[in-house]
Amino acid sequence: MTKHIYWKGDSLYLLDQRELPFKKVYVRCNTLEDTRYAIKNMVIRGAPLIGIVAAYGFVLGIKEILKNKGFLNEKEIKRISKALLNTRPTAVNLLWAIKRMERAYDKYKEKQDIEASMLEEAVAIHVEDIENNRMISLFGAELIKDKDCILTHCNAGSLAMGGYGTALGVIKAAHESGKKIKVFATETRPYFQGARLTAWELYNEGIHVEVVPDNHVGILFHKKLIDKVIVGADRIALNGDTANKVGTFMIALCAKAHNIPFYVAAPVSTFDPEIESGNLIPIEERDGNEVKNFRGLPITLKKIKARYYSFDITDHRYISAFVTERGIIKRPFKRYIKMLFP
Amino acid sequence: MTKHIYWKGDSLYLLDQRELPFKKVYVRCNTLEDTRYAIKNMVIRGAPLIGIVAAYGFVLGIKEILKNKGFLNEKEIKRISKALLNTRPTAVNLLWAIKRMERAYDKYKEKQDIEASMLEEAVAIHVEDIENNRMISLFGAELIKDKDCILTHCNAGSLAMGGYGTALGVIKAAHESGKKIKVFATETRPYFQGARLTAWELYNEGIHVEVVPDNHVGILFHKKLIDKVIVGADRIALNGDTANKVGTFMIALCAKAHNIPFYVAAPVSTFDPEIESGNLIPIEERDGNEVKNFRGLPITLKKIKARYYSFDITDHRYISAFVTERGIIKRPFKRYIKMLFP
Repeated sequence: MTKHIYWKGDSLYLLDQRELPFKKVYVRCNTLEDTRYAIKNMVIRGAPLIGIVAAYGFVLGIKEILKNKGFLNEKEIKRISKALLNTRPTAVNLLWAIKRMERAYDKYKEKQDIEASMLEEAVAIHVEDIENNRMISLFGAELIKDKDCILTHCNAGSLAMGGYGTALGVIKAAHESGKKIKVFATETRPYFQGARLTAWELYNEGIHVEVVPDNHVGILFHKKLIDKVIVGADRIALNGDTANKVGTFMIALCAKAHNIPFYVAAPVSTFDPEIESGNLIPIEERDGNEVKNFRGLPITLKKIKARYYSFDITDHRYISAFVTERGIIKRPFKRYIKMLFP
Repeated sequence: MTKHIYWKGDSLYLLDQRELPFKKVYVRCNTLEDTRYAIKNMVIRGAPLIGIVAAYGFVLGIKEILKNKGFLNEKEIKRISKALLNTRPTAVNLLWAIKRMERAYDKYKEKQDIEASMLEEAVAIHVEDIENNRMISLFGAELIKDKDCILTHCNAGSLAMGGYGTALGVIKAAHESGKKIKVFATETRPYFQGARLTAWELYNEGIHVEVVPDNHVGILFHKKLIDKVIVGADRIALNGDTANKVGTFMIALCAKAHNIPFYVAAPVSTFDPEIESGNLIPIEERDGNEVKNFRGLPITLKKIKARYYSFDITDHRYISAFVTERGIIKRPFKRYIKMLFP
């Protein structure tokens, strides 16, 4: 797999995920603003990766201030945090990464080489995420049986994370352990992350994958083609209600109606101990025009309106278990999720 | 609205619905084979319209035989029926229209001007469908309240019928009676009938409409934006199980989970008294490549597989009522549906 995020010299390089798998183009981020643009305009996406990119963006913000002003203070740090936080509202990993970078600043602010220390912290966030993905995958692979057919939505693969993947990591780990797995990937409108990224990632791993339109979930269950569902998450409330890519809720509802397990794979950084239930999770509404075009080709007339919510909330009732780097979380969710935050 | 189907001279003219609303191109059908092509390749779609086009195709088939052989017989008629029936398997209106044309043949076969009589029968099927749509719309409009926000899927509008529409007919009739209605139209992958046809039809009628991706159904319900769902149908079994455009089942499931009425509007010709339940309805599987492209633009790599079922089955448990030209059908569905076929 092509490296999708790396730091070199004084810049962050991001593989432009809007162009994959057709073109491999890197976007170079030299400033805080470049990083904000990349997050906001979906050069990169996926909750954990958004967090990682924000951490590197934090470093770029600090570099700029030091270069321009020669010194740092709390106010400047708050400005950086706010600028990054204002990019996308739903994925809590963004907030989590920013808070961690703020704590690192507090720790290192008296140090001479603060830039280097802050970069080390960003790299640590990045590397730990890959390690977490590996652990999630190992725990999750235990849930997968030989010959299972798995439905996944959007892309919770290596491209959405530091590397390896959560939902796709589980599938890959099961595959690597010798289990024969088939996967249906929902295409995931409007940006086709399922068709472009998930199908490509799995195909490259030698895993049997077929793309279906998002509206195919019902007929796949009706035909008894699905044994398990596994998806990622953008924010998980204390009671287990889960924000994930729009369309996830309908899949969970279908799974429940057909008595099929529905798993959410995510690192602890995706849990939000500050939020009691899904109703309180902010749902990003993006420009309806993003729905009305696919790579410049219109799907309807310009004068016709469209609406685009990026995420939806899956009620905890429809979730069978969470797969985290610390193990599988079963019911009662609230009790066990609280234990993640001592 | 542009005329989307008409007979002129010795030909059937069909507005190519694959190009709408961007281009208005007519496909001229001179032969049975032209008509089969138009049905199979979705120049036209929509269960009632497929039936109407098949009826005209029947006439074209008869014309050809008379021209080439000079006489007609049962064997030739059976060949025409079979050729038309083999185009698309799910919409029962196709079978219904062919059977009606066969009966007309039996009635008129001794007549000198059989071609003219058969054409009259096809025109009668066409005209009756428009009348049925009007009746469906009048009955259905009673279910709609002022300020209702309605979700619909795919296109059950004038373009799917002889004219006016079933699900969209109900919405139009409610609008014409002075009720303020808002509509969400799911875009309906892979052919975007919702975004291209439904949104365009409703916009042209001055009805407020917004397009959403198919995966938005859950979040719209979660946000309490939907008061009612109304869709068309391709085949309805005796127990009320309903085949309709793929994606319908998930919408019905969401509606039930949120306690929102889910209505199916369809003419009696869409009910299949020969089929007890939805499990027996044939579901068309089309070429997966149709999913992988949008107007020539790929959504994934060529080597990656895709699957495309055109329809799904909505269990009768999730349907609140059927709207037909004979009135509203409530529970117990089986009892009342049987009464349609004395």
